[in-house]
Amino acid sequence: MTLVDEALNGDLRAIAKIITKIEDDSPDAIAFMKELYPHTGKAYIIGITGAPGVGKSTLGDKIIDYLRKEGRSVGVIAVDPSSPFSGGAILADRIRMQHHFLDERVFIRSMATRGSLGGLSRTTNNAVNVLDGCGFDFIIIETVGVGQDEIDVVKLSKTTLVTFAPGMGDELQAMKAGIMEIGDIFVVNKADRDDADRTERDINAMLELNPKKNGWAPIVVKTVATTGEGIEELMKVIYTHKDFLDRNTSCLYEKEVYKSEMEIINILKEKLLERAIEKAETEGGIKSYAKKVADREIDAYSAAERILKLL
Amino acid sequence: MTLVDEALNGDLRAIAKIITKIEDDSPDAIAFMKELYPHTGKAYIIGITGAPGVGKSTLGDKIIDYLRKEGRSVGVIAVDPSSPFSGGAILADRIRMQHHFLDERVFIRSMATRGSLGGLSRTTNNAVNVLDGCGFDFIIIETVGVGQDEIDVVKLSKTTLVTFAPGMGDELQAMKAGIMEIGDIFVVNKADRDDADRTERDINAMLELNPKKNGWAPIVVKTVATTGEGIEELMKVIYTHKDFLDRNTSCLYEKEVYKSEMEIINILKEKLLERAIEKAETEGGIKSYAKKVADREIDAYSAAERILKLL
Repeated sequence: MTLVDEALNGDLRAIAKIITKIEDDSPDAIAFMKELYPHTGKAYIIGITGAPGVGKSTLGDKIIDYLRKEGRSVGVIAVDPSSPFSGGAILADRIRMQHHFLDERVFIRSMATRGSLGGLSRTTNNAVNVLDGCGFDFIIIETVGVGQDEIDVVKLSKTTLVTFAPGMGDELQAMKAGIMEIGDIFVVNKADRDDADRTERDINAMLELNPKKNGWAPIVVKTVATTGEGIEELMKVIYTHKDFLDRNTSCLYEKEVYKSEMEIINILKEKLLERAIEKAETEGGIKSYAKKVADREIDAYSAAERILKLL
Repeated sequence: MTLVDEALNGDLRAIAKIITKIEDDSPDAIAFMKELYPHTGKAYIIGITGAPGVGKSTLGDKIIDYLRKEGRSVGVIAVDPSSPFSGGAILADRIRMQHHFLDERVFIRSMATRGSLGGLSRTTNNAVNVLDGCGFDFIIIETVGVGQDEIDVVKLSKTTLVTFAPGMGDELQAMKAGIMEIGDIFVVNKADRDDADRTERDINAMLELNPKKNGWAPIVVKTVATTGEGIEELMKVIYTHKDFLDRNTSCLYEKEVYKSEMEIINILKEKLLERAIEKAETEGGIKSYAKKVADREIDAYSAAERILKLL
């Protein structure tokens, strides 16, 4: 049996191996993705985002528990920005979610950005496609941070939870996060804290300024992930959003086309840049141009134009 | 006088116009950048990053006050992720920093990512180069969020302040932010809160695991930006880091080359992608390929390969 066949049979080790090859940009990875792709499109993808410290991992953990009780299989991709410390993050996720370790129908993986050329959302999308193709019923994408790259990652999901904790700054700060418009559901976690109601009010006030998303009016849910409080209500709201999307197939299809377009563009960017870097090698590499820019001999646009002329 | 001449003379309206043209990707923008670039390289660039709600704007505001008392001119670029709400963020910054409005030697600008093709760090870099070329002594880049894109933006600065507020989650969460390794100085703002000392200890514990950055050992400073407490000490530490870099010119030059390399790569990516999108138009555009991918007719890699063959 090939590695892909083993993965399609639900072998977690084979799945992990394929994802590692994707992360490492191994030449095999593209062939694997091509083989797996026709099997994709069945999983329901839930994105969880929010600032550090709001309890995203614990929330994800409780969602896994809930889905497992329903008999659903769950894949988790936790995305970290590039960090020499990411070993720590992986460890932290593993500790948090350790009790799923022996469950054959749960797969948890932390990913970090590799290289300076970006590719976070491409790598994540491929990993999600692997899990989707291998038959996981639900896939959770947990993204740390609220940056542009992380927003792109969350766009891979069908239902996006934007998570807050009480007392994380006033409503103007929340607006700044730029994540209000990507949330289908807003979670106020750690809702046993005093100022949870205020945070809920602030979010609702923000949402009132925001037009509905293709007919869906975002909902705010309060949870205490550590105790499990509010998780059942949250799951009901997730299923309500899922039903909504099932009834509005054009909306789902649009998401799918957008996702595919971004994916193609990401692959194109990387492939084209590879070509340019290769060509620039004949002239001392991009670094030799960068030195000229640093020395103010030329500007970056002129440097790029010179490299483009080599193509 | 040309617009660039006016800007070089310190005319704030001309500077604002040039930055707008950069944001709008106006065809003039590249010519402006080429003209301004030889004048750059003199400003000292300070980056301020951290999660939403830690008080970055207020901190930036107090740094402006300090630098203005010293007679230095200050340019500020506040970076927001793409958001239909970014009007709100601009408003918020303006409110916070309004008392500088009549000061001719302070320029404050909020930027949002434009378009789906990225370009946040290129746009910010150009805006910083405009302010640098136009003679601002100090430039502050404030980035909202802790994502990969924002980390790239902060890499444009010479001294990077990573800002925390007490009680934003345990040390494992801080690690996840992926920003420990980019900080030259760590600021615990809102240090009048109970758990400020714990946060300081957590950061110091993390830093002990982290090797020194080219010989610089990061320093933790506690501030209460709203009252101005600790700002003078913070500024002393910023100047200490500046002196350190002045004595280690190879370190500064390396930063400059890295920054230039990233800039060239960003321009290349966009130009190359533009070419590919243009070519794909002859075949119904990238969207027609994306639809095939969404329909599972082909996978994204095969789609990208087909487009590459058109080039």
